[in-house]
Amino acid sequence: MDPLPIPSVVVRRLPIYLRALSFMASTGRKITSSQELGARLHLSAAQIRKDLSYFGEFGKQGTGYEIDHLRTQLLKILHVDRAWPLALIGAGDLGHAIMHYEDLGDRGFYVAAVFDNNPRKVGKKLGDQEILDIPSLPKVIRRKKIKIAIIAVPAPAAQEVTDMLVKARIKAILNYAPTALSVSEDVNVYDIDPVAGLQSMTYYL
Amino acid sequence: MDPLPIPSVVVRRLPIYLRALSFMASTGRKITSSQELGARLHLSAAQIRKDLSYFGEFGKQGTGYEIDHLRTQLLKILHVDRAWPLALIGAGDLGHAIMHYEDLGDRGFYVAAVFDNNPRKVGKKLGDQEILDIPSLPKVIRRKKIKIAIIAVPAPAAQEVTDMLVKARIKAILNYAPTALSVSEDVNVYDIDPVAGLQSMTYYL
Repeated sequence: MDPLPIPSVVVRRLPIYLRALSFMASTGRKITSSQELGARLHLSAAQIRKDLSYFGEFGKQGTGYEIDHLRTQLLKILHVDRAWPLALIGAGDLGHAIMHYEDLGDRGFYVAAVFDNNPRKVGKKLGDQEILDIPSLPKVIRRKKIKIAIIAVPAPAAQEVTDMLVKARIKAILNYAPTALSVSEDVNVYDIDPVAGLQSMTYYL
Repeated sequence: MDPLPIPSVVVRRLPIYLRALSFMASTGRKITSSQELGARLHLSAAQIRKDLSYFGEFGKQGTGYEIDHLRTQLLKILHVDRAWPLALIGAGDLGHAIMHYEDLGDRGFYVAAVFDNNPRKVGKKLGDQEILDIPSLPKVIRRKKIKIAIIAVPAPAAQEVTDMLVKARIKAILNYAPTALSVSEDVNVYDIDPVAGLQSMTYYL
């Protein structure tokens, strides 16, 4: 399957489909439908059928989707039919939460290196990783062939860390710092901003 | 200003505009443009102008946006020209990170009650809050007039907590549990799923 350029909003929904299918599989389910997925995910059945049709023919008229098959295909399409090493920058409360987040390992990722600029933290352990200092970041990222980083540092430090990551040829950044990062064009950034989420709901209150 | 129904994708971008404007204001800037905002936020200038035009006339041809004025208007539009009390469910690593997240207070929110089902945590302090048990949730939420909750519990516990929150008339839920919550129609849910974010980037790797 050699996919055409897919709208990024579609790509962003695929992990949610995968998550729902994995949940269904874990309860022993075999078959689902775009209607059921839509009801579960608050999306229209037509939207789900259209999104999946970018990648081939998964469903059969009248019989729905085979959960295991569709799940396996989505794992491949999203390239999470393997385990990706991550660099975690920031070993504060948030870094701890990320390190202990079981879903990472269950869904295709593991933290392979942790960095912090606090000398009192460097050398200590976070989970199974020794916390390393920031200057060692480029060397470690290259040696461990890490392509994905999680930024869990305060906003004022985030751009400097980002510049180091881009130089070390990181290609994807999950950004928890509440600030817009500037990166080169070949680097993807996904922002996690819980307060933006809250504010988009208070609009309706 | 009595806004017409606005697409939810537009509403979801407003907090990001507000965040960028607040940053600019903090550095002493007075005027910006849709071009500058667009470059900073990786959006087109036309998109930003169109989004803001739903809410009135903010920019002037040739002179751009007055940062303070637009910022004040967005605070009002998003209803964060006040401080909203939040209920935090889950006092684990993630709950700690949320409680100590400075941006909450800076951007219109404060944690007014913390709940956990672990008897060893109940009665202890998290930040300035005593951790309360789950059975006290409905009463405390009503007494403190809390309308917004943050779910920071494991996925298998999330729906049960959600049902209690909806019954206690919570109207907005920031959901960190990696599962699709079922709620009544008058409740908004905003999902934070970092692994979904990572998976939407590995697609491109």
